[in-house]
Formats: sequence, C-alpha cells, structure tokens
Amino acid sequence: MTKRATIVGGGVIGGGWAARFLLMGWDVRVFDPDPEAERKIGEVLDNARRSLPGLSDVAMPAEGKLSFHETISEAVAGSDWIQESVPERLDLKRKVYQTLQEHCSPDAVIGSSTSGFKPSELQGCATRPAQIVVTHPFNPVYLLPLIELVTTEKNDAALIERAKDIITSLGMFPLHLKKEIDAHIADRFLEAVWREALWLIKDGIATTEEIDNAIRYGFGLRWGQMGLFETYRVAGGEAGMKHFIAQFGPCLEWPWTKLMDVPELTDELVDMIADQSDAQSGAYTIRELERIRDNNLVAMMRALKTQDWGAGALLRVQDKRMMPAEPDLLKPIVTVSRAVPLDWTDYNGHMNEARYVQAFGDGTDKFMEFVGCDEDYIANGGSYFTAETHIRYIDELNAGARIRVETICVLGEGKKMHLFHQMFEGDRLVATGEMMLIHVSLKTRRASNPAPHIEEKLAKVAAAHAALPRPEGIGRAIGVIGVKA
Amino acid sequence: MTKRATIVGGGVIGGGWAARFLLMGWDVRVFDPDPEAERKIGEVLDNARRSLPGLSDVAMPAEGKLSFHETISEAVAGSDWIQESVPERLDLKRKVYQTLQEHCSPDAVIGSSTSGFKPSELQGCATRPAQIVVTHPFNPVYLLPLIELVTTEKNDAALIERAKDIITSLGMFPLHLKKEIDAHIADRFLEAVWREALWLIKDGIATTEEIDNAIRYGFGLRWGQMGLFETYRVAGGEAGMKHFIAQFGPCLEWPWTKLMDVPELTDELVDMIADQSDAQSGAYTIRELERIRDNNLVAMMRALKTQDWGAGALLRVQDKRMMPAEPDLLKPIVTVSRAVPLDWTDYNGHMNEARYVQAFGDGTDKFMEFVGCDEDYIANGGSYFTAETHIRYIDELNAGARIRVETICVLGEGKKMHLFHQMFEGDRLVATGEMMLIHVSLKTRRASNPAPHIEEKLAKVAAAHAALPRPEGIGRAIGVIGVKA
Repeated sequence: MTKRATIVGGGVIGGGWAARFLLMGWDVRVFDPDPEAERKIGEVLDNARRSLPGLSDVAMPAEGKLSFHETISEAVAGSDWIQESVPERLDLKRKVYQTLQEHCSPDAVIGSSTSGFKPSELQGCATRPAQIVVTHPFNPVYLLPLIELVTTEKNDAALIERAKDIITSLGMFPLHLKKEIDAHIADRFLEAVWREALWLIKDGIATTEEIDNAIRYGFGLRWGQMGLFETYRVAGGEAGMKHFIAQFGPCLEWPWTKLMDVPELTDELVDMIADQSDAQSGAYTIRELERIRDNNLVAMMRALKTQDWGAGALLRVQDKRMMPAEPDLLKPIVTVSRAVPLDWTDYNGHMNEARYVQAFGDGTDKFMEFVGCDEDYIANGGSYFTAETHIRYIDELNAGARIRVETICVLGEGKKMHLFHQMFEGDRLVATGEMMLIHVSLKTRRASNPAPHIEEKLAKVAAAHAALPRPEGIGRAIGVIGVKA
Repeated sequence: MTKRATIVGGGVIGGGWAARFLLMGWDVRVFDPDPEAERKIGEVLDNARRSLPGLSDVAMPAEGKLSFHETISEAVAGSDWIQESVPERLDLKRKVYQTLQEHCSPDAVIGSSTSGFKPSELQGCATRPAQIVVTHPFNPVYLLPLIELVTTEKNDAALIERAKDIITSLGMFPLHLKKEIDAHIADRFLEAVWREALWLIKDGIATTEEIDNAIRYGFGLRWGQMGLFETYRVAGGEAGMKHFIAQFGPCLEWPWTKLMDVPELTDELVDMIADQSDAQSGAYTIRELERIRDNNLVAMMRALKTQDWGAGALLRVQDKRMMPAEPDLLKPIVTVSRAVPLDWTDYNGHMNEARYVQAFGDGTDKFMEFVGCDEDYIANGGSYFTAETHIRYIDELNAGARIRVETICVLGEGKKMHLFHQMFEGDRLVATGEMMLIHVSLKTRRASNPAPHIEEKLAKVAAAHAALPRPEGIGRAIGVIGVKA
C-alpha cells in the first residue's frame, strides 16, 4: 500500500522533504498557509526530478501523488510520517504540534526539521511527547543523505526504530543522537566556522570567494569523503591516532580562533558580505547555482559510488534494496532500468557515447550475475571479459530519460557468451549493443571454461532466447549507418 | 632547462611536495637528517605516482630526478624553489633559514609549509627576509590544489609573482593572503571544528565515527564543491545573501558552541578518541586508508572536472597548459596521451570496457578540434555525433598505465567522418576503436554538411592518411575474436 507523508511548512526544506518522499513513491500532503507554497515546492520538485533518479543505478518507484490542503486536520489524515519545517520559533512549533496531535494517528512519526531546538523543548507541552522527534535534514534534502535523528527518553522505542527504517528506506542516513544537545552536531561545527568566517571578512583578511576557495580546494574535498577524524587518522600515519593527538593537541591552546566574540552585524558588514558574494557568484542566478550545485553533488556522489565509500556506499546499499526480482526467460531480459544521470551528458547536450557502453556493460554485469557469475564467483577467480563490442547509436538521450536495456543471449557455449542489448526510452529504440565475451581465469588472465552451474544456466537461457524473434542488426559491421539522416 | 627544487624536511608534507615537483618534471634535492627520510619519501612518492597522473587528461612531463643530500649547502645549490617543512618550532625554522640563505640563490623562493606561524615571524632574524614566504599546503600535497601563500610588505613583488606562477605551474592554486594572520585561513576553521569535536566526544554526545558521518553525509559534500558562502547564497534563495544573513545572523548569538573552552587532553580522553577511531577505521591499515582516500579524491576531483567546477575547473586549466602542439599529418595522429586514472578500473581489476570508449571518444574530440570542429564551432550549432562504434578489446590495462591513442581518418567526406583509433601502452596494442560519425546541426538535430573550412581540412587529412599502411581490423563485424585464448 502506498505510504503517506504530510509536510507542514513548505519552504526550501519542506519542499525538499516533499520531493524525497514523492520520488521514493510516497503520497505527499502539504499544509502551508503561504499562497506561494505550491509554486515554491514545484520548483524544488523540478530540481529533485532532474537530479535524484540518476543517483540510482536501478529504477526508482513510481512517483507518489502530491496534494495541497487548507487545514492541518485534512493534511495529516492517514499519514505515516509528518514532517514539520515551520520557522524556528518555539511557541509556533509547539502550537503546530498541539493541532497536529489532535488530528493525526498516534502511530505516525512527527519529525521536526529544527536545526536549533532540542527534542525535549519540542515535546514540552505536547499531548503525546513520545511521538515527536528531531529529524534534521541538510539542503538539498533530495540529494544529501544525512538526517540527524535526535530523541529523548520520552520517545517510544518502537517509534524510534520505525523512524530509522523509514529514513533508511528514503535513501537517507539516520544519525541517531541518543543524548540531546543544542544545535545537534553538524550545526555546531557550521556555527563555529561561520563566526570565524565573519571575522575574516570584517578584518579584511579574506573575501567570501577566498574563504570558499580555502575550503573547496583543500579540506572540503577531504571532508566530503572521510570527515575529520578518519582524515587525521591517515595524516597521523603509522604512529596512529594517539600520537597525532599528542602532537597536534597543544596547538589547540593557541589563541588562533576568535572564538567567543561575534562580530556585530552592522549594515556595513552585511553590505560587505553581500557585495563580495555578488562579485563571486553574481554571474549566475540562484536557479542556475542550484542546478550547478546539484550537478556537482550528483557527480561527486556517483564518483564515491564507484569507490563504494561514504555517501556512495549508502547509494549502493539503497540500489540493492530497490533491485527487481528474477526475470521471465521467455522474454528478452530487462537488465537495466534507470534514469540518465546528470553527469552522463556531454558538450553536444546528450548522453555521451561512452555512457551507452557503460549502460550496456551494466546490463552485461546483471546478466552475468543472473547466470551465476556473481560477486562470490568473481572473488573465487572466474569472470567474463568483453572481447568485442559493436554499438549503433540510433537516437539521442537527454539527462533524466528513463532507459531500459533488454538483453538477448545469442550464444552461450564453452568460453563464449554473445549478447545483444537493445536500449529503449519507452517504445523508442535508442541504441543497440552487441557484445562478445570470453570467460577467463582471473589468476592466469587467460580464456577458460566457466563453472558447470554457469554453463548449464547459460545454455538454458540461450535455448529459451533462440525461440525469440531475432532483432535486426546482429552481426553487422561498421558502414551501414543507423542514424536518421 | 629542468627546474630544481629543494625539500628541507621530508615527512608526509615534505614528501608530498617532493612528489608534486618530481611528477611535474622538476629535479628534487632533499635534505633531511632523519635516516628514514628516503623510505618515507619513497612511500609518499608511490602513492603520488598511482594517483596524480590520472587526474590529468593529457600526458604529464617526464618525471624529474630525485636525490638526497647530506648538507643543506649541497641540497640548495642551483635551486629555484626551496620548501621548508621542518617541525613547528620557530627557533628551529629561523636557524634553518640562516643556513639556507648562506648557500642558496638570492632569487630562489623560500616557502614554508607552516600552518601556524606568520611570515613576519619567519622573516624575523633572516638575512634576506624578502625571499621568505609562507606556502602552506594540504595533505595529500600531491593531490589537493590549495596553497595558502602568505606574504608581508618585506617580500619582493617580483618574487611573489614568481611564486604564484610556479605554484600554478605545479597544478596548484595559490590563495594569496595579503594580510597575515595566525594560522592563515583554513586552519582557523579546522581548529574551531576540532575543538568542538573534542567536546562532543568528551561529553559522550557522539563518537569519532558519528562525527565523521555528520560531516561527510551532509555539509562536507557541499563544501567540497562550493565552500561556505556560495552554499549559503544558494540556500538564501531569490531573496539573496542580505536576506539570508539577516535571518541567520541572530542565531550566532546563541551559545551553541563551546567556543573558548578547550577540553583538557587527559589520558582518558586521548584513549577514548583512539579507541573510537580504532572501532571506526581499524579494519584498514594506514597505508590502505591512504589509498582509499586518494582513490576517493581522484574520483571526486575527476567528477568535478566533468562539471568544470571547483577543483575540477583547476584541473581543466592545467590540462590546457600541458596540451601538446600540432601533429604531423604523415603519421597517425596521437589524439590521446594519458595515464589510466584510478577510477577507470572495475571489479575485474582492469580498465572497464566503457572507459576504452571514453578514451577513444576523447581521441575523436581531439581530432574534431584539429579539423576545426572546436568549442566555438560547436557553440555556433554544428557538431559530429557518433553513429556507430566497433571496439576490439585486445589486452588488459591497469590503473596508472600510460596509454596513447593513434588515430587514422579512413574517410572524411560530406557528412561522414570515419575514424580508426588504435590504443597502445608503449608498443603493445591494447584495443582498436572504429567510429563512424555524422555531422549534425545542433539546432535541427539532423545530419548536415560541415562548414567549408572543416570539409577542406578533413579532406586534406583523409588524403594524407590514405597513404599510410591500413591497420588490420577496419570494417570487421563481431564474431572474429581478437582476444588471446
């Protein structure tokens, strides 16, 4: 059954939550008295639709239904999750919870996007404090996986587990803080850095652009994949973490940072920052910057996915959860079903030629897995290598296109595996990929026969596929052009 | 003439500098009284050799010569750059500068890797203060581009320009701080975050792993590409930076961060951190973590390169600087000359099939550029699309292999461009790629004739190449296997 989420407060953060739920197949009901809410959420949703599906290497669920509601009571009816993202005023939030709890299911999770308040403060005057937790996300919510889940001893243990499961099922990472603290974890760091940055600008040491460059050309890249402590563990070298702290610790006593002081936000300082920021990024509109940011995040997160590390490791686990079941042998096997990611296009504005081969290669991997040449088998020293590939690029594909690869086994005998892939967007054939693979021993790196269970399964598939109609184009050489001319 | 750098102090940082200079073609002379220096630098150099060359999409210069010297006077002879990375003790550094300046060229740049001292402090007792600057790098120095270049009014303007040029030529980014301050910029942020992190651990709020996850699943990814201010500019939305500060500013007055206090580094606290770090990352040796970190950084920086943004934009500029000159038409044209990057290999331990097509595609791009279908031409609405590709995978390639693609124009007539690429590692043929391309109008997305200057150049190349010996394999269909069996 389709799950239902309610979004209370639909700005950039609420809109991001709405997009995340919708694209993961949930129905979403929004309550926001702002007459602009529908437009604002629509814009966030546009950004999410172009960036999130391509993070995944399998098909996302069908998008849920989005609706807007005039009253909280209507918006929360039948919801499994209620996400509150109203402005950071405790009295307002408490009032919202009172109304919410009058109408919502007592089993629903009520999560707050607050970056500053502790859950005990939010639970303060509530009818059912056990139901209210902090689930603090990071912008853009539809791409970044981190959720700070902060609970108190008043929260129901089963509800906490349910909250974790749901956050995980959305492709996010629940970082559970069992002890509450002002501003949770990440925003404490952000505040410390922000204060220091304001001083650097006020004192004329650096501009906004210089500060950003100091971050993104240096430690920002380290932090994107390992964070603080693992980075220093590596820096400490063989001597280890203890040695590193002993060496570095005393520096912390030096009065480097401005620390306690906050520079007064005078008009002059605010103008200085705004002017510097215009000089740095004013060539782009905010909408353009949003898309640049999303392109960068998708490319970096997909890069980490190739390394199975950090945010990329989370994406891999999520893909495994969404992987489809066993195929029907009497049809061509659907070996790829995915969206074209933002980083697969090139200067011609369409999917790059190498990415067709990557998608067909993913199809080959899936087919190999299906006949038993899986991770375990490869770890034990057998695999298939591609010996030859023939691609016909029949039509263009844009970022975001939902593609499907259908695979036929032309031959599966002895060392040879001959596959013919067809790539479709809907009913439109966009490319064919013919591939000849050879089974090899990973030890000798030479051709060898596959294990009997693979040979058997392969023979069975090849026999079944021999009965299928042969697609046009098998066995062709370059020269006969398939492109529309 | 080969340039020469001297490395004084060869730990992780000095070794990283040595590797950066060597791989960019400089000769490097090392002075370090540590009897282990040669081994230590060798290990850093191994890491650099496997990771840095693949960041570039063109060939790196031939590696320089590395030598170790017993005395400073011998080590600095004839050097254009002297990099000091001795321990952070002012008296020691000043003593080193005195000896250095007795023997080095007065025109050499003396850069200090210090993270804490201001250049005026380093210049204090020096014979020629004008020569001494801070050039603070970030670990791993052979991958991260940031150099904080801090100078004083005592520095010679021409020397500062020379320092900037040299840093840039090494593929790094000189962030020039014209006003000195303790700990420069980046380490002020790092100190603020580090203090806060120690409190979180000491107070039992979070473990080292939870803190790292709070960073790398959230704002760490944002900072890796945009830094602090551009990220908040985007978050502020259409209302702009001024509005964002007005909204967010008051929060800074809240006493979130621990700020002034430093937790005492008791044995208990040090043990707690070391134990948590072991639980988090103890499954890997430091050497393994170094390589994981480098793999991640290469993959992320190359991802940003596809987006022409942040550290990736720097890499593109660097590639343009290293691009080779015009080819000789009477030979096959070398269209690609590069190292196989760390993120191009797959589960079979060799270069992935799609990356061969990517490298051949890069060769096609280079060839197109050569015949006049360059960035400007494409921006004006004409380009070539690949219609068909036939790849023969003849032999395996490992990460780090230096590959070369030689391209022959088989046909260049009307709308058609038929190319045959051969990929070599040294003399070993590892793959062939035959590609049929069609000229298209990017407006109608349909086949069209190229501009006359392209048609003319293409005809000239095709005529010259018709005289070359035909490589085996042109015009073949799948079925005849080229792999060793």
